[in-house]
Amino acid sequence: MLSDTRTSAGVDNISTYGKMNVVENPGERVVCTTTAGNLALSQVVVSMIQDGFASDTLGGFHTLSTTPTMFATAQFIGEAIRRTFAAHGEAMRQQHIGFDVSVLLGGQIGGGRMQLFQIYAAGNFIEATDETPYLQIGEHKYGKPILDRAARHDTPLYDAIKLALVSMDSTLRSNLSVGLPIDLLVYRRDTCRVDIRRRIHEDDRYFRQLREQWSSALRDAYRAIPQPDWSR
Amino acid sequence: MLSDTRTSAGVDNISTYGKMNVVENPGERVVCTTTAGNLALSQVVVSMIQDGFASDTLGGFHTLSTTPTMFATAQFIGEAIRRTFAAHGEAMRQQHIGFDVSVLLGGQIGGGRMQLFQIYAAGNFIEATDETPYLQIGEHKYGKPILDRAARHDTPLYDAIKLALVSMDSTLRSNLSVGLPIDLLVYRRDTCRVDIRRRIHEDDRYFRQLREQWSSALRDAYRAIPQPDWSR
Repeated sequence: MLSDTRTSAGVDNISTYGKMNVVENPGERVVCTTTAGNLALSQVVVSMIQDGFASDTLGGFHTLSTTPTMFATAQFIGEAIRRTFAAHGEAMRQQHIGFDVSVLLGGQIGGGRMQLFQIYAAGNFIEATDETPYLQIGEHKYGKPILDRAARHDTPLYDAIKLALVSMDSTLRSNLSVGLPIDLLVYRRDTCRVDIRRRIHEDDRYFRQLREQWSSALRDAYRAIPQPDWSR
Repeated sequence: MLSDTRTSAGVDNISTYGKMNVVENPGERVVCTTTAGNLALSQVVVSMIQDGFASDTLGGFHTLSTTPTMFATAQFIGEAIRRTFAAHGEAMRQQHIGFDVSVLLGGQIGGGRMQLFQIYAAGNFIEATDETPYLQIGEHKYGKPILDRAARHDTPLYDAIKLALVSMDSTLRSNLSVGLPIDLLVYRRDTCRVDIRRRIHEDDRYFRQLREQWSSALRDAYRAIPQPDWSR
């Protein structure tokens, strides 16, 4: 999972906020969320699921450390979003502010499957599948073409890390509302512990090298394509 | 200039309409427009500038074949858009339909400079410059990263054709609302005649080869980047 840290309320009001939240109970669970949308909403949702609440859906008090399965965790986050809508939705509507919040949830709990979910502003959610092995929230368009071309469910893990970084780099270059540093979490199936957690800053040696190699490879690639022999 | 031909009113209502309009008076002018946004609006605007109207801005009856300069042509199209807004804007507002139309205008007239303009829904416009040598309208995000990385004002013409096709290909792959065939116009500065005008279909041999080479080059490029040596 990969997220940026840029929050903006207009181009003249830019701040840095982490959007990744990780719960690790080694051997038992790794649960990672990233959020997009309105910062006030996503902070409320993240606080609710970190601190916990008495869940109607799950029946009893839960936090991201106690939910019994990944599916239940997606339901739990969906309920937190619906409760946030109940508290803030009407006042925002009166001021013509859209209720814009979404969450990616990835990880593995106990003996369950490793799963990846995208949870919408209505609290409903979808799961990634073999056919569509990646999910994006927030400003997704600039980074999507390379994923559509190259990301498959059997892409090796370290190739997938490179793809995610290349995808994020395209977005960083083309949209001011997405900015460094970026947060990376890598989890290996059935380990129930974090493999890599890293905040990548502007001066990160590897990321700089990846950006330069990628730009240079793209320029070489289009130049290597033969010219069309079309004439009028 | 490059445009697709897909028009959609929902994913279950897709049609093919050319969005490129070319006026060529060899030796005197080549004027090319492409449009994006609401089809009903862009058809009205294109009809107005093709058939002509008595322009307040230019003082007298004009068509795309008679406007005196490229700048005057941009003003003329802006006026056509404002007149369309005057006729349709209020009724659309009452039905909560946005007034969404934009135009790219490129070409050269008489002894004037070759110029490229983007005209907004309010009829105002900007011109491409050396620092920002390309303009996009409509669904622009998927295709922007490669242009941001590689398109420069001194990019050779045939390299620019390849870049435009690669950029459009990214959009074709990631967004159903953009579809083949695509229309290409190539104009060489100071010739005042069309160099290439071509409708590119699914079975176009060159375009197929370009798409395959590009996809293959991207996959090779990300695989060639070394893996990170990060650990926890």
